[in-house]
Amino acid sequence: MQNFDYCTPTRLLFGQGVVEKLPEVMSRYGKKILLTYGGGSIKKMGLYDMVKELLKEFTIVELSGIQPNPKYDPSVLEGVKLCKENDIDVILSVGGGSVLDCSKAIAAGAKYDGDPWDLISYKVKAQAALPIVDIITLAATGSEYDCGGVISRTATNDKIGYVDPLLYPVVSFLDPTYTFTVSAKQTAAGCADAMNHIMEQYFCEDSTILNDGFMEAGLKSLMVNAKKCIEDPEDYTARAEMMLTCTYGCNGIYSLGNSPTGWPLHGMEHVLSAYYDITHGVGLAIITPRWMKHVLSEKTVDRFVKYGVHVFGIDSHQDPFTIANQAIEATYKFFESIHIPMHLKEVGIDESRIDEMAKHVADNEGLENAWVPLLRQDIAEIFRASL
Amino acid sequence: MQNFDYCTPTRLLFGQGVVEKLPEVMSRYGKKILLTYGGGSIKKMGLYDMVKELLKEFTIVELSGIQPNPKYDPSVLEGVKLCKENDIDVILSVGGGSVLDCSKAIAAGAKYDGDPWDLISYKVKAQAALPIVDIITLAATGSEYDCGGVISRTATNDKIGYVDPLLYPVVSFLDPTYTFTVSAKQTAAGCADAMNHIMEQYFCEDSTILNDGFMEAGLKSLMVNAKKCIEDPEDYTARAEMMLTCTYGCNGIYSLGNSPTGWPLHGMEHVLSAYYDITHGVGLAIITPRWMKHVLSEKTVDRFVKYGVHVFGIDSHQDPFTIANQAIEATYKFFESIHIPMHLKEVGIDESRIDEMAKHVADNEGLENAWVPLLRQDIAEIFRASL
Repeated sequence: MQNFDYCTPTRLLFGQGVVEKLPEVMSRYGKKILLTYGGGSIKKMGLYDMVKELLKEFTIVELSGIQPNPKYDPSVLEGVKLCKENDIDVILSVGGGSVLDCSKAIAAGAKYDGDPWDLISYKVKAQAALPIVDIITLAATGSEYDCGGVISRTATNDKIGYVDPLLYPVVSFLDPTYTFTVSAKQTAAGCADAMNHIMEQYFCEDSTILNDGFMEAGLKSLMVNAKKCIEDPEDYTARAEMMLTCTYGCNGIYSLGNSPTGWPLHGMEHVLSAYYDITHGVGLAIITPRWMKHVLSEKTVDRFVKYGVHVFGIDSHQDPFTIANQAIEATYKFFESIHIPMHLKEVGIDESRIDEMAKHVADNEGLENAWVPLLRQDIAEIFRASL
Repeated sequence: MQNFDYCTPTRLLFGQGVVEKLPEVMSRYGKKILLTYGGGSIKKMGLYDMVKELLKEFTIVELSGIQPNPKYDPSVLEGVKLCKENDIDVILSVGGGSVLDCSKAIAAGAKYDGDPWDLISYKVKAQAALPIVDIITLAATGSEYDCGGVISRTATNDKIGYVDPLLYPVVSFLDPTYTFTVSAKQTAAGCADAMNHIMEQYFCEDSTILNDGFMEAGLKSLMVNAKKCIEDPEDYTARAEMMLTCTYGCNGIYSLGNSPTGWPLHGMEHVLSAYYDITHGVGLAIITPRWMKHVLSEKTVDRFVKYGVHVFGIDSHQDPFTIANQAIEATYKFFESIHIPMHLKEVGIDESRIDEMAKHVADNEGLENAWVPLLRQDIAEIFRASL
């Protein structure tokens, strides 16, 4: 087991109706709120009106239109400007992981005098950040329980995971009923994203009985519950289980003490969606089984056997490579069964920029240090196999 | 799934050598430290000298002699007095769960003008507490990651679980090498205690795939690693896995959203050890299989089947009651295999006070609301079956 230093101070308020506690929670952090959100979905479901009604005693400044794969320009820059101009006390993020990721970058930028990109690109370490409260409306990223966010700068095809312990939300409201209106497509993409967060931690050199069991349960929970959510979008229990399983995704709790893995799939996918603005979870689902095939070897086969037997219930009395290949096939079939397009071509990505993207990954993501090291050639092969 | 409100703000510093960070950590909380510990074990292993050397720039006041099943009188009262007299800034607890539990009661008492028993007995709600840092030397109670402590008042045979969110340690240092010197007997008792913490959450009306998998992994981790620790006390990996599995025991993370269970085994055992001062984990191990037999019914059998199949790998193609009884037998045999005395008579408890103790439990522990409700007669039967 590796040494670790772990602290997730976020308070989770979970369950139907918890948002009623919003005024009490917000009043601890101040009177002037920057309310951040995306498109119109929170208005359609009535959440926007409810939040405004609950917070009618507060001063609210709004930043709307935050997109999936949230953008440095305009969203982060606008949010920072609004915070500074209005002397904002606290940010309230209402939406999915993209809105929250964007809000985290704004929270740090609001307390920094220079260009916020200095912080996001790690040129400068943030010294303070505004407190962040969130209401999550999509089970996927786990941003509600971690201190990171992914920000895209379109001008340079950059998509950076910006992580700082200052950025844990102080309170995350998780009401599974707010995910009832999430489409089948987005539910599937969220499931793939969350499964990937676990797999990025599971496929490693060295784990424990505890962590393996926790992660295998997480993967099973996501597969069972995502299917239920797609069949019956208002299945409260399935939405709730899926939501909590996603929440643990990225704060490290699934794998405390495990050896580091380098998160190779996220490293590769971030570049795909930086270049083509595809849905993150879809990009991950497409490359995952191809990555698995690429890294399967005498050295890694035992891990795939464990995955296959424990997660998919594959018969353990077979040759290890047979089990491993069945496990990879089962992974592919699962994503296909929830109707994720499983080829890059289906989401508009062709051969033309593969070498350029592989170079970008190899130059920026440090995957030569991943569980199975990936060089430029490996990355290009995985992308090509995914076409 | 039930609604929940969860926050564990404690920072975990885990692994060999982490205690070197002690001066840096302590300096955030002040200069005047109350150092709490138990008998001489931390001196024997050199930890006491190391802590004193690391903290030579600080003012240290000491409270030693804190016993297992820590006592309100004298330990809590003395600790509170020392804090007030010396204007203590922060408590450093070095030892196992008993030292830390006692330190929590002291931390609250130090900020209260009246009799600390007012707080422990919930007559008065604490308004503040001193910050607590701990160095854990025994894997068992999970006190390093929760906000509760169990305090005994001998004069009244009371043993109360005192819980308050003010009492989360701010930092817990977990170096598995400090558990190398824990005896086989204490290692077994710690394992039984930690297994029980999980079982008290596992046996419930309603759980999730995620929580069940997490808890089943926790139980397996404890059984495998406790045996390894007993065979080779310096097996770092086994000590480390056992330590982390124990750490999650009581803060709720194993069962977020599960239906409440009433923690019946702890309710019963607290009275046994309040009356007879036996080792908590031993008392739990003895009554657990007898409780299981007592509550096994058509209504509960499915839960025992899941436990048997998933934790012990019992063949699932059998009659449910056969599987359940095999699971109960396997639980008993496991405790026996790590040399826990499995009869109350072996730890000095006879028939004489069983009815009195059963009444005490029934009157004070609220077990009529447990997963399977337990009345005075049930409790007495479980105690008698444990003789």
